[in-house]
Amino acid sequence: MRTPEEYVSDLKKMRKNVYVGGERVGRDDSRLMPGIKVMKTTFELALNPDWEGVITAQSSLTGNTINRFTHLPQNPWDLMQKQKMIRLAATRVGGCIQRCMGQDAIVALSVATKEMDEEYGTEYHGRFMNYLREYQERDWAGACAQTDMKGDRSKRPHEQEDPDAYVHIVEEKSDGIVVRGAKVSITMAPVADEILVVPTRALTEKDRDYAVAFAIPADWESIRLITRPAFVRARKKLKCPYAEMGVAESVIVFDNTFIPMERVFMCGEWQFGRRLALLFADSHRFSYTGCKPAVSDILCGATALVAEANNIERASHVREKLSEFIGIGELAYAAGIAAALYGEKTSSGTFFPNLIYSNIGRRLMGENIYHEFNILTEIAGGLSVTLPYEDDFLTGETKKDLEKYIKRNPKMSSEDAHRCWRLVENIAASSMGSWYQIAGVHGGGSPIMETITLNLETDYEAKKNIAKYLAGINKELDQSKDLKAKPVPVGP
Amino acid sequence: MRTPEEYVSDLKKMRKNVYVGGERVGRDDSRLMPGIKVMKTTFELALNPDWEGVITAQSSLTGNTINRFTHLPQNPWDLMQKQKMIRLAATRVGGCIQRCMGQDAIVALSVATKEMDEEYGTEYHGRFMNYLREYQERDWAGACAQTDMKGDRSKRPHEQEDPDAYVHIVEEKSDGIVVRGAKVSITMAPVADEILVVPTRALTEKDRDYAVAFAIPADWESIRLITRPAFVRARKKLKCPYAEMGVAESVIVFDNTFIPMERVFMCGEWQFGRRLALLFADSHRFSYTGCKPAVSDILCGATALVAEANNIERASHVREKLSEFIGIGELAYAAGIAAALYGEKTSSGTFFPNLIYSNIGRRLMGENIYHEFNILTEIAGGLSVTLPYEDDFLTGETKKDLEKYIKRNPKMSSEDAHRCWRLVENIAASSMGSWYQIAGVHGGGSPIMETITLNLETDYEAKKNIAKYLAGINKELDQSKDLKAKPVPVGP
Amino acid sequence: MRTPEEYVSDLKKMRKNVYVGGERVGRDDSRLMPGIKVMKTTFELALNPDWEGVITAQSSLTGNTINRFTHLPQNPWDLMQKQKMIRLAATRVGGCIQRCMGQDAIVALSVATKEMDEEYGTEYHGRFMNYLREYQERDWAGACAQTDMKGDRSKRPHEQEDPDAYVHIVEEKSDGIVVRGAKVSITMAPVADEILVVPTRALTEKDRDYAVAFAIPADWESIRLITRPAFVRARKKLKCPYAEMGVAESVIVFDNTFIPMERVFMCGEWQFGRRLALLFADSHRFSYTGCKPAVSDILCGATALVAEANNIERASHVREKLSEFIGIGELAYAAGIAAALYGEKTSSGTFFPNLIYSNIGRRLMGENIYHEFNILTEIAGGLSVTLPYEDDFLTGETKKDLEKYIKRNPKMSSEDAHRCWRLVENIAASSMGSWYQIAGVHGGGSPIMETITLNLETDYEAKKNIAKYLAGINKELDQSKDLKAKPVPVGP
Amino acid sequence: MRTPEEYVSDLKKMRKNVYVGGERVGRDDSRLMPGIKVMKTTFELALNPDWEGVITAQSSLTGNTINRFTHLPQNPWDLMQKQKMIRLAATRVGGCIQRCMGQDAIVALSVATKEMDEEYGTEYHGRFMNYLREYQERDWAGACAQTDMKGDRSKRPHEQEDPDAYVHIVEEKSDGIVVRGAKVSITMAPVADEILVVPTRALTEKDRDYAVAFAIPADWESIRLITRPAFVRARKKLKCPYAEMGVAESVIVFDNTFIPMERVFMCGEWQFGRRLALLFADSHRFSYTGCKPAVSDILCGATALVAEANNIERASHVREKLSEFIGIGELAYAAGIAAALYGEKTSSGTFFPNLIYSNIGRRLMGENIYHEFNILTEIAGGLSVTLPYEDDFLTGETKKDLEKYIKRNPKMSSEDAHRCWRLVENIAASSMGSWYQIAGVHGGGSPIMETITLNLETDYEAKKNIAKYLAGINKELDQSKDLKAKPVPVGP
Repeated sequence: MRTPEEYVSDLKKMRKNVYVGGERVGRDDSRLMPGIKVMKTTFELALNPDWEGVITAQSSLTGNTINRFTHLPQNPWDLMQKQKMIRLAATRVGGCIQRCMGQDAIVALSVATKEMDEEYGTEYHGRFMNYLREYQERDWAGACAQTDMKGDRSKRPHEQEDPDAYVHIVEEKSDGIVVRGAKVSITMAPVADEILVVPTRALTEKDRDYAVAFAIPADWESIRLITRPAFVRARKKLKCPYAEMGVAESVIVFDNTFIPMERVFMCGEWQFGRRLALLFADSHRFSYTGCKPAVSDILCGATALVAEANNIERASHVREKLSEFIGIGELAYAAGIAAALYGEKTSSGTFFPNLIYSNIGRRLMGENIYHEFNILTEIAGGLSVTLPYEDDFLTGETKKDLEKYIKRNPKMSSEDAHRCWRLVENIAASSMGSWYQIAGVHGGGSPIMETITLNLETDYEAKKNIAKYLAGINKELDQSKDLKAKPVPVGP
Repeated sequence: MRTPEEYVSDLKKMRKNVYVGGERVGRDDSRLMPGIKVMKTTFELALNPDWEGVITAQSSLTGNTINRFTHLPQNPWDLMQKQKMIRLAATRVGGCIQRCMGQDAIVALSVATKEMDEEYGTEYHGRFMNYLREYQERDWAGACAQTDMKGDRSKRPHEQEDPDAYVHIVEEKSDGIVVRGAKVSITMAPVADEILVVPTRALTEKDRDYAVAFAIPADWESIRLITRPAFVRARKKLKCPYAEMGVAESVIVFDNTFIPMERVFMCGEWQFGRRLALLFADSHRFSYTGCKPAVSDILCGATALVAEANNIERASHVREKLSEFIGIGELAYAAGIAAALYGEKTSSGTFFPNLIYSNIGRRLMGENIYHEFNILTEIAGGLSVTLPYEDDFLTGETKKDLEKYIKRNPKMSSEDAHRCWRLVENIAASSMGSWYQIAGVHGGGSPIMETITLNLETDYEAKKNIAKYLAGINKELDQSKDLKAKPVPVGP
Repeated sequence: MRTPEEYVSDLKKMRKNVYVGGERVGRDDSRLMPGIKVMKTTFELALNPDWEGVITAQSSLTGNTINRFTHLPQNPWDLMQKQKMIRLAATRVGGCIQRCMGQDAIVALSVATKEMDEEYGTEYHGRFMNYLREYQERDWAGACAQTDMKGDRSKRPHEQEDPDAYVHIVEEKSDGIVVRGAKVSITMAPVADEILVVPTRALTEKDRDYAVAFAIPADWESIRLITRPAFVRARKKLKCPYAEMGVAESVIVFDNTFIPMERVFMCGEWQFGRRLALLFADSHRFSYTGCKPAVSDILCGATALVAEANNIERASHVREKLSEFIGIGELAYAAGIAAALYGEKTSSGTFFPNLIYSNIGRRLMGENIYHEFNILTEIAGGLSVTLPYEDDFLTGETKKDLEKYIKRNPKMSSEDAHRCWRLVENIAASSMGSWYQIAGVHGGGSPIMETITLNLETDYEAKKNIAKYLAGINKELDQSKDLKAKPVPVGP
Repeated sequence: MRTPEEYVSDLKKMRKNVYVGGERVGRDDSRLMPGIKVMKTTFELALNPDWEGVITAQSSLTGNTINRFTHLPQNPWDLMQKQKMIRLAATRVGGCIQRCMGQDAIVALSVATKEMDEEYGTEYHGRFMNYLREYQERDWAGACAQTDMKGDRSKRPHEQEDPDAYVHIVEEKSDGIVVRGAKVSITMAPVADEILVVPTRALTEKDRDYAVAFAIPADWESIRLITRPAFVRARKKLKCPYAEMGVAESVIVFDNTFIPMERVFMCGEWQFGRRLALLFADSHRFSYTGCKPAVSDILCGATALVAEANNIERASHVREKLSEFIGIGELAYAAGIAAALYGEKTSSGTFFPNLIYSNIGRRLMGENIYHEFNILTEIAGGLSVTLPYEDDFLTGETKKDLEKYIKRNPKMSSEDAHRCWRLVENIAASSMGSWYQIAGVHGGGSPIMETITLNLETDYEAKKNIAKYLAGINKELDQSKDLKAKPVPVGP
């Protein structure tokens, strides 16, 4: 496993293909630093013996100890450890650990390549497993590029006016393929080693060229990352973890990009477009059952802390609202546990979480994220967004004023009160706050996407059979399918 | 294990101490039949080899095969099987299988008697286990009587104007005790073999006489069951399971009732009042993670069926609403799974579900039950409550009219359409419907009770520590308590 | 204006064409009495000088003082008085005063007949106004029959397998027409003097025969009322208004029914099908801004009373929940006021409420009705549905028990406590409760119907113009249409 | 009335007592410009003949035509015009017009000064009306400073460790008073001409020195404005109104500030502390029934526009969500109309809105503001927060990429699509967005404050009387108080 320093050093060697605010910049641009700090956390924790078996795992390919973010889960226990890893790491970086994207991409590709090989006799799986061996050995952080620019949303890829609205194959050569198009809303691309590309939707035969999956280094020739970093206003004096972390979203432009054949994992198998798209999405929704409890924990903790600062921590309406965070976060976590237990072994050997449970967990969070912010700011009060800038607390005529007046709870020092309010402001009234709200709705698929999956996966005829039995329309009720299924044994 | 017929035959031998609508009646009163049919289901299923290991279990006392409703769960797997048993049986009786009350009472008593013995050197546990041996061997159905009449809710038991507002000890003799008071809202008492009495709340030293727990046959001397049965209008021709099932709620009056010492399981240990009250409540809340998914399934099935009858089953707003049932029911089920996995072994050997997960699961259902009925009737339309009586479909001038006009979906016969609407009416516009709504809010404790438990159980300081770490108030964050805990291995 | 006794006497003279539970019965059947009592209230209040100008009005046709339920509103003030009349009367009968249906039908017919005449040179308006003169002079109570049986909901009337799925013209004669079909979910038909029939939906040219409106006495030849009465269990001793009131819903079968020409108000004008359907629906939605605040008041009052009985009236969570009723009921009432002020004078002289405000008011109530019942039963506790029958309080061994134990608040007598809980049971756990829940969702059109109307009526382009102006896409913003409109002056 | 230019010119003459980010700055600081632009809009509109009678009014003091923001409403019509004025102006500045604060302060002071004079024979009212004459003639923009820093929230003002936690009188002289303390979360102070100070809460006799109200120029001696401006990232090329507007919140420190007697409007009358605090709050809550519909309109318009950009405008779930904005915004507007009609004439002649309706309107908005943002971003998609910076669209290698890929709806140009997304980002993912969310919860008082007022104002005994009548506990029901009240006639 790499040290955090090795990760950063590798990043700095990369070609300058990142664009921010009209400039081409290197990976050492200060605006990328908050995202890099998040990623470093995943390397630090893996070296911490306290978290052995949580952040680390034994590779199913090599038997070596690897960072769990590069691991293919093999059983329910692995999925439950993945949840814990994400919750743990997410807590420490303020909510989104990002690196699970790459893990969900390798999970999806491991399953789909195997299934395509079984169906068509192709050789994707072996090719992908070779790639994965390197991915694990070099301890890569991968970004997954799924969402296309999409153009007119009422049209399929091949019907678009601009054929580049979805990433597609423009040429197939003996040693590789050439692709064009753009992916959008891609988190962490400029701080990743690798970019893994998968389709974003179901495809028809006419969309054949859009059925393409591959992996490339993030600084590969002919790709541009047009990046929008997000972070909070840097602290002058009151340094803290929350203020140092952030994200960077990118439009990734593939401008006739050549992909070597050993890194191509789908090439025209349009029948598997939807399968691969959903494998990534559903694995990622499972990941949310780890990170979103962390987001609820953070919001809950900030709310409880600001209630203490306001000296209203014991008020019954405050207590009631605090318990809502537990309701949301732990229900999502429980959904993940159930998804792990009721998951299934795929033909590739990768163990995949149950779709119903993954999707209800993710949907719950997506439906409640704005409400959770609402609780925080309702308890915190208007000061969340009217707090003077840090400098006014530090210097000049206003320093004394603010130190005097910021204090509410006599047991909390002015500095701690200031730190508390500054955290609330950073969380609730900053561009990071907006990012968490909107990513909370859309990351991994918005609630309407989960509803669609739930409607596909739920056996409503079985539910109707219950009603038919109770109504006397049917004489018998067979529930063996639902209730005789046994959870798979789990254990360390 | 008894046959359903033996159970009914035993009931009929009982002393007539049931009062309904101003009369004293026997257990063969037709208004008690719907409750008896529910109870019979638990005996029938136990004899069905399909459900071996689900409805049956191996006794931890004797090693014999017993009905799981009389079993003390010993491990996570047992808890998960209990969830399944309840979901399965509840589905078949239209929602509430009732007999779990007794199981939750024996669970609570097994744990509390052991803990009292450990604390005070009493002999309750052995006494209770003797009782339980008979309970299992005779395959009893037990009702749990917890909720007292309570009198003035702003006062403690000993402060009440009427000391009988809570059941209490009025005399202690060498061979037993005498108790007085009344319990209210006690489900299934007149169809039970036994009544198990536990305290309803935390007690102070002055409430010593209110710290009392015991078990008696349901027709014991000096107790009166003032019973309110609930069922739907009996069918003349369109017989069906839903219309045959029902419940019966009772006020149970203890009128200087003598309890033999071998059936007394708490006698003055006021310090354990709250513990025993919560052991029953929390075990029962876990039971709801089995039955409430069944309620959601039934409501979902009825909604899907009536949507088919209306020929609007594919409409997108219908599909979206159907998926809400999955969200609610399966999240509660997942909470139960997590409660099982993160449960704990008590000193008595009984395995007890995790409190956080049990309570968030129960609360979710309590908060959503009215909304679920709303979905059903919104999709069903006004006919749910305006459907002419069954007789008008069966005879005279109106038979032809209604057979003609009831038909909407050409693929569904008039009779099936009628059966479908009749089921919807029975579910949503009947006294059973009201019972399910209100029991859905209050059974096992209303949402506010779960919120109180959640606030007691949640370590908000740990949440604040997250915020303090992110804010830079604390330099370190210790998450080992939360995230290093390992689920207990499960398996058949 | 008629006295209540004259109204009842007129009813009793009617032909026996009502069917309940397989029998043909007269208007003196005891199961119809609860509906008759509701209707009588509207006659009683009109004779009470306290409510002059509220329940009475000056006819715009004759200048005579008439019952306002037979009046065509002429200005905003009239609409506001109509709201008050409905709120007042609804409060006294427990929630639904029913007679507004007839008023909304005459409003709709007054407007649509005029517009049809203007468009086609027909003579409906004069014919209808002649009818209305009699309606006012004889002080009739009218039921409006709108909702058809509908058959397959995915098909238009003329596409149905059974052409009778919607009421339609089967023959046109010189002196009248013959109609066939059935209307469903028609409130109050057997306690009405007259039935006014209007179309239920938009029609196409091929649906021409379904464009039909007319009025007939409720006991007219060849119509059958298949009636489902709803009421609560009759009281033996604790008589009270709530327990005496109820409703009766009917399927009305038109079996080749002849309608004399002077009572035909639409005959083939399919282009006006939707207009007439919506005129009734929207007028009725406005009526809900009067009755639904009454429903909220009743639920609020019952909740506050039971909180007093539980002696928890000052608890903060109780107070918070009580205020929700105010939020819902008064917002709906305010929507009615705004609908009155922003209403418009139609060509017929009838003043019609604003559609946006009528629909948002009705939708708010439809979306919250189940939640309001939930508040009541959450505060009331399980006793709402487990209260023993009245007889057990009145006689025998159980009388003393229940009188003793029903008491909670020392300041409330046992009888008053019993009356309070009995009211809660009647409201929340009875077939009337179910009726109010489902009528609350569907009466006047369910929330989805209001959403459709709102989407038709809202000028979303105007909203987009705001965004375009703020985004710099458009340079100007014209708001004169929205904000220069002036409310019409109002006053007594 | 002043021109916008005169307003700005007057501002620039002010003493430099504004502090931003550690510096003392003049009113010409660029970070104050967004707030100044908002304020200018109120002057521009008043000179526009289109809005005569809406933005202008005839002074009740002088009969002169004045800006309505400086006017005391005299009747319901005035209140309804005030609502329109605010809705109109708020729409044009992106949501908060700010200047209503000053109007609500003069309303509150006009009423309270009269009532204090009536009670104590003081001379505040005449003094205040003299001040108001100048306020109207010089067409001032006033900020209202109400919220104190508050210190320990569990303690009253006189109990605080630091007596300055609330602004208070430290010395009374013959020609004026000296005050100390700080107000927080004061919007628009650095762009106002005047600051009007009122108490923030109910006071006891020991809090006498905290009963103080006065007005001073915003640059008065010994006051410091520690200001936090909020605005969106300035546009380089795609200029637009939304991006130019903003706010500035201040902590206002009163450091032994002398207030001349002719500007002191309360001095020790602690009995009126609560009255004056609520007069301002409730008048301001009424103002929200004007501005919050504008916020809903803007969010609705942006959602509809981005749905058009995504070419999903006709999708049924989009339509349904759009209608929610109408439900929220127009219900709040209707609450304002009802508040105007049911308002009351105070002894001062000022017409004051009804408290129930003002508070339910404001609460509705406060409870829904986060949900409304959620709708916008759910429809808009992740691009709301991942849109590359403006510069990347304007220059270099990325210009072509982004112009090509930003296009979705073929009927919308790349620039318009970019403008649309940029607006969505500005609204939903910026510090202004956070400001609108949090101000939406807290401005004028958070939902819990409205609930408290509703519980004080609602006559729950009257509601209980309804229940008692229906239950037969009371024989009569007197509704004359509620339903005989007549709305005051309105008209231009």
